[in-house]
Amino acid sequence: MTTDDLTTGDLTTAGQIPSASELAAEASALDAADPLRSLRDEFVGSETSLVYFDGNSLGRPPRSAAARLETFVREEWGGRLIRGWDESWMQLPFLIGDTIGRTALGAAPGQTVIGDSTTVLLYKLLRAAFDSCAAEDPRRVEIVIDRDNFPTDRFLAEGIAAERGGRVRWVEVDRAAGVSPELLREAVGPQTAVVLLSHVAYRSGFLADAAELTRIAHDAGALVLWDLCHSAGSVPIEADAWRFDLAVGCTYKYLNGGPGSPAFAYVAERHQSALAQPIQGWMGAADVFAMGPSYAPGEGMRRFLSGTPPIVGMLALQDTLRLIETVGIEALRKKSVALTEFAVRLADALLAPLGVTLASPRGAGERGGHITLSHPRMREVTARLWEQDVIPDYRDPGGLRIGLSPLSTSFTETLEGMRAVRGALE
Amino acid sequence: MTTDDLTTGDLTTAGQIPSASELAAEASALDAADPLRSLRDEFVGSETSLVYFDGNSLGRPPRSAAARLETFVREEWGGRLIRGWDESWMQLPFLIGDTIGRTALGAAPGQTVIGDSTTVLLYKLLRAAFDSCAAEDPRRVEIVIDRDNFPTDRFLAEGIAAERGGRVRWVEVDRAAGVSPELLREAVGPQTAVVLLSHVAYRSGFLADAAELTRIAHDAGALVLWDLCHSAGSVPIEADAWRFDLAVGCTYKYLNGGPGSPAFAYVAERHQSALAQPIQGWMGAADVFAMGPSYAPGEGMRRFLSGTPPIVGMLALQDTLRLIETVGIEALRKKSVALTEFAVRLADALLAPLGVTLASPRGAGERGGHITLSHPRMREVTARLWEQDVIPDYRDPGGLRIGLSPLSTSFTETLEGMRAVRGALE
Repeated sequence: MTTDDLTTGDLTTAGQIPSASELAAEASALDAADPLRSLRDEFVGSETSLVYFDGNSLGRPPRSAAARLETFVREEWGGRLIRGWDESWMQLPFLIGDTIGRTALGAAPGQTVIGDSTTVLLYKLLRAAFDSCAAEDPRRVEIVIDRDNFPTDRFLAEGIAAERGGRVRWVEVDRAAGVSPELLREAVGPQTAVVLLSHVAYRSGFLADAAELTRIAHDAGALVLWDLCHSAGSVPIEADAWRFDLAVGCTYKYLNGGPGSPAFAYVAERHQSALAQPIQGWMGAADVFAMGPSYAPGEGMRRFLSGTPPIVGMLALQDTLRLIETVGIEALRKKSVALTEFAVRLADALLAPLGVTLASPRGAGERGGHITLSHPRMREVTARLWEQDVIPDYRDPGGLRIGLSPLSTSFTETLEGMRAVRGALE
Repeated sequence: MTTDDLTTGDLTTAGQIPSASELAAEASALDAADPLRSLRDEFVGSETSLVYFDGNSLGRPPRSAAARLETFVREEWGGRLIRGWDESWMQLPFLIGDTIGRTALGAAPGQTVIGDSTTVLLYKLLRAAFDSCAAEDPRRVEIVIDRDNFPTDRFLAEGIAAERGGRVRWVEVDRAAGVSPELLREAVGPQTAVVLLSHVAYRSGFLADAAELTRIAHDAGALVLWDLCHSAGSVPIEADAWRFDLAVGCTYKYLNGGPGSPAFAYVAERHQSALAQPIQGWMGAADVFAMGPSYAPGEGMRRFLSGTPPIVGMLALQDTLRLIETVGIEALRKKSVALTEFAVRLADALLAPLGVTLASPRGAGERGGHITLSHPRMREVTARLWEQDVIPDYRDPGGLRIGLSPLSTSFTETLEGMRAVRGALE
């Protein structure tokens, strides 16, 4: 059985619950056929019986990360001391940024950098984009965003609209879906400055048609800022080919950078020199150590930096980037689709009879690397599962989020976890 | 000989260069009398012959930091995974913040938090303070700052004044000194919104009279935002007693948090509920996981957070904070004064004859933990010293910055370094 066969299976219509041994055999066969199965061993904790359904929220540590950090403290920080800045650290945000661009974003060098938190980078780029559009055409005062976007994105859109004399245009979406081309076409026009969209919706896992939505925004004369938090490292992205203007994303989810590792920002080369972000710090200046009388923004991506780069926090993700580069994002996506297909199949078989519904798109092409299962008691279910070392996430209202990192999740683990969900619900 | 005797020595007037053996004996005697001498062994690299004059720019790693990070990756990140957020990480910015407040700032709990970079935190607090003052009294449109303040502070003041319809009032200062009460009195008035000052000047090491300057700003009805980057962990601070309004500071200098470790923010309790910062992210919201329709700022210091806290980057500094708490900031200041006195004395003896001048205050009471020595050739001198494992810092124009962390610097090390400066100049 290959993973492609999975899309044809539909146990819902059959209405039959497969036996425990049938499911176990199926999971084993999928694992045996999985060309990426050995990657799981590269991550801390894969040797335990713990089931991890949250690689989309905080990726497991690569095994090499512990040694990398320990060595960094002794040899680089401790041995090179302040010289480390000149020798390598000053370039690290650009170097790792370019690696993210190359391995996960489809971005040519010189357009990606890592720096602050996702929130801070979103603030900087949304301000830069809004101010630029509004300055060019004073009628462009709207930030378009959907009601089900991640809280930070919505909060920032509201805050920036308020402080810059703009307004928010809300796109109403079905919670199990996301922003469709039709919905966006209705929302944009000559009044639109920036469209702020998530590539993969944090709750439903809905995968937006980023190429088409970007085209629609451009046809209306607006800029698009993509939030790639839930897609980078799991879903193929072609930032350059799809003509993205700006993007921001997490590195602690599918890029396994560790709790609170710094986010990345992408700004298409054609926009860089025209955009100005408001947090003017020394690291964004044209000549960092000139310390001149006034701020002159740096060339290229430097101008999107502000303070001293968080070096310690950006070390671990380099190991995952190397893995992703080796196997390629297409192979990861293939496994990711197989994992969510299998999870949906198991949900239909094991959980639908208990009243659980799928709050994610059914078609794999419309879905990122996680699914959400709805039931009024999922909050208690999550608490119980955590005690059993089965770790999904919970999102209001009543959503059990199953994140299946293709690097570190096996099919057998997926089966065990879904069985545990059934057990907790029973 | 006690360290107090040092302030009476003045080799300049004597005009005699002490012999190598006299100086070595003096350094040895100072080390022998130093009650903090054993602390140096707590830091990576203290066993080597390297001379480190840059603890004010990037503190050495505490020896325990390497193991702490390695263990964190394996056990906390790897073992607790996403549960770590609920179990401890969510509280860490407040817990470490309170520890910094208690050990280094003279701040009662609930007023200090660690989060973004220094630049980003300065932006948030300066915006919050400016907007609040201007809203209360539209005549208050000025940000007061000195021309020799750190670039980021100046760049932010200019940027925020421009974007908020305010203006910058520049205080002109002598480069070897800083903002005096007289200079500030002339600069503030009914037009002042916020005064932004560095407690210790990054170049000269000038130590401002923070209590008196705060009083002067308050008498004019303005708020004060203190930049504590070069004083926290080295100079006693009484944020509450001196009635600070707001403060921001580094943790990678005298708090030894590692390259790019997150900065801290202090907001006096009396101001917290009235201030709003512009980077509205989920971590600053009243109920982080409610993910409600609109942003409602959190209680207390939470509202000054924005994105996911950078946990990995904030781990190492906890070891230094423990050391500081054990010995107390007063003992550190005493040693710091003795170190800079000794360095000044050595500069007078060894370097003044070669044309080097002191670009820092001569009185210890007006000086933080570093001094700057001026000579037109200091840039080349710095490059040569780095190759010899003698590591000061260079700041334009012609300034050799000698930072002497009282936790990890010995008097013998100071002597060796100053001799190497003489050798490089010769």
